[in-house]
Amino acid sequence: MTPGRPVPPPLGKHLTLGDADSSSAGDGVRTLAAAYGATSPGSGLVPLTIVRRAPKPDDVEIEIEFCGLCHSDVHSTRGEWGMRNYPLVPGHEIVGRVRSVGSAIHDFAPGDRVGVGCLVDSCGECESCLEGLEQYCERGNVGTYGAKDARNGDSITQGGYSTSVVVDRRFVLRIPESLDPAEAAPLLCAGITTYSPLRYFDVEEGDVVGIVGLGGLGHIAVKLAKVMGAHVVVFTTSEAKVEAARELGADGVILSTDSDAMEGAERTVDLIIDTVAAPHDLDPYFRSLRLDGALFQLGLPATDMPPVKPGSLMRRRLAYVGSSIGGIAETQEMLDFCAEHGVASDIEIVTADQLNDAYDRMVAGDVKYRFVLDTKTLHTPSEKADA
Amino acid sequence: MTPGRPVPPPLGKHLTLGDADSSSAGDGVRTLAAAYGATSPGSGLVPLTIVRRAPKPDDVEIEIEFCGLCHSDVHSTRGEWGMRNYPLVPGHEIVGRVRSVGSAIHDFAPGDRVGVGCLVDSCGECESCLEGLEQYCERGNVGTYGAKDARNGDSITQGGYSTSVVVDRRFVLRIPESLDPAEAAPLLCAGITTYSPLRYFDVEEGDVVGIVGLGGLGHIAVKLAKVMGAHVVVFTTSEAKVEAARELGADGVILSTDSDAMEGAERTVDLIIDTVAAPHDLDPYFRSLRLDGALFQLGLPATDMPPVKPGSLMRRRLAYVGSSIGGIAETQEMLDFCAEHGVASDIEIVTADQLNDAYDRMVAGDVKYRFVLDTKTLHTPSEKADA
Repeated sequence: MTPGRPVPPPLGKHLTLGDADSSSAGDGVRTLAAAYGATSPGSGLVPLTIVRRAPKPDDVEIEIEFCGLCHSDVHSTRGEWGMRNYPLVPGHEIVGRVRSVGSAIHDFAPGDRVGVGCLVDSCGECESCLEGLEQYCERGNVGTYGAKDARNGDSITQGGYSTSVVVDRRFVLRIPESLDPAEAAPLLCAGITTYSPLRYFDVEEGDVVGIVGLGGLGHIAVKLAKVMGAHVVVFTTSEAKVEAARELGADGVILSTDSDAMEGAERTVDLIIDTVAAPHDLDPYFRSLRLDGALFQLGLPATDMPPVKPGSLMRRRLAYVGSSIGGIAETQEMLDFCAEHGVASDIEIVTADQLNDAYDRMVAGDVKYRFVLDTKTLHTPSEKADA
Repeated sequence: MTPGRPVPPPLGKHLTLGDADSSSAGDGVRTLAAAYGATSPGSGLVPLTIVRRAPKPDDVEIEIEFCGLCHSDVHSTRGEWGMRNYPLVPGHEIVGRVRSVGSAIHDFAPGDRVGVGCLVDSCGECESCLEGLEQYCERGNVGTYGAKDARNGDSITQGGYSTSVVVDRRFVLRIPESLDPAEAAPLLCAGITTYSPLRYFDVEEGDVVGIVGLGGLGHIAVKLAKVMGAHVVVFTTSEAKVEAARELGADGVILSTDSDAMEGAERTVDLIIDTVAAPHDLDPYFRSLRLDGALFQLGLPATDMPPVKPGSLMRRRLAYVGSSIGGIAETQEMLDFCAEHGVASDIEIVTADQLNDAYDRMVAGDVKYRFVLDTKTLHTPSEKADA
């Protein structure tokens, strides 16, 4: 059985995943897909076979080519952000080609290169959704994996470490053909997560942008901020990354462990994009900000951050802001912007059987700068779904 | 000797306070003034005699009528924000009448009603000062009390619990005659501290503004936000303040200790003005904010706040912002705005010998809503200065 091969319904009672109710929608058939996922917080990633729902009229069926590995995937599969439903197939930096489209879709066709990011649904009716900010959907958006999918029989979504996926057209992005598909994959999360606050702060020529942490998010943030005309300063704890930051285009690099250097950076930065997902003291970064500066925190540590000192914010009317990925329209804008300016992720491609090692290396910070799974290396799905 | 009586220089070596260097400026004479201040962190407030510098050509000599009692005064005199220079005369909500003006001053005349807030000098040359944001002076502004005054012989400034003060014209505000002088005094700190973030956030008709804490700052914030057209919701821990908040004009009052009420307030507020100066968990307030909402913290607790949860900020792109008083031009704008709209502080006038009791009552939250010292009740200064 080849990956993604259609499986005619009914599939039998072991097929509890996917949209049992949609078989009557009549627009397609459910498929089995090969995937890698966790079966418990301690299981690591193991080969699985999952069901993808029968496409509805508004759905796009995508044959996945590449999927980026995000730190969130590690946190989620390992249960570090709280208990999840298992089995759990992670992955929300998905690039592939359209295999089929539902009957209501006229702007995508089989063969189109498309992407899916962190979201696969939202209410579409609240103020946030109407503003194109589906990530802040007031009724709660539906994440690409591990989320309850109300419009599809309350099934739990499964992510992109898989051979195929079926996604509502509203959440499918167009990947410009000029972008390398593997290098484009991380843009769907790491790219938009950094692009959105840079745009929200309205970064322009001459602004000084500080990037804290030079990992998957940080290295794309450096590239994006440079293309926007900013003077970019990277803050890193690692001497090994000083040269790497310069190679990426950083105008300045500051070792955050060097208190003299940090003192020298006082009041020099307009905006900080903080990509570090471990607890860390923000005070030295607040000191580096100028009047009316802002620090956007993008990483979500599993344990408490040190307290923020109100006096540090008051000293220069600083803002400590949270930002979460970006809306779908903005994600498309970002992809087009990246294609126009030749921005993509520096990646290392991994095979399915390297995923667990890759996770360990991510935790150790040993990746420049994003792992991307080549889904061609996934196994053949079994005859029965594991979930 | 009557308060404020001129004392011809030289006064002898015990007069180390005041501007020893300015005697050559020749524009006036130093004076002794009666004052109340602390002589150590544990002394409480005691009668003192202090020296006011000889006015320079750009100085305004002010006969103080009223001075508001701010929580900062308690923290500072008691050494709760770190060690200070003693004796320390607090007070930065000063209203009085011009007694004399320096030779270079043509826009103030004796008898004019004027005010002095938290600042008496700044560099005047840095980006912040040039923008009229002297409170964020890059070289450090000079506070109205307890601050080293570089342009005046590095003397330590002494505040408004006193019969007179000499202040550079650039830091003297005009108090509209339509405002009651005692009720206007708290506007110089409590007023501008809340006005500035309301303006910075650009509050307009129909915005929902939450005010956390109903004290000196909070009660003025309610009045200001109402006049700006906002729907005002007060968050308070005190049942006794529910009715009081409504009397001040609040459209809604939420007992922050009532978790059901707090849950009901979820995603209803655009802007929060947090006036509480004790450590408190911000998370319930972040939950009450809508998309792109902001919480401005104005109080400066003496000990750490609980950690901010980055996820709470990320959920709705919220900003946690620090704001400190306001610039001089904005303070004048605020005073004129208050005169136009009939906004002033609810006050209780105290005499000098009630100051220590008033401090205890402030700490206990037992004041509606600001104590104001009537400086007529100060003693006669002695022949020799205490500091």
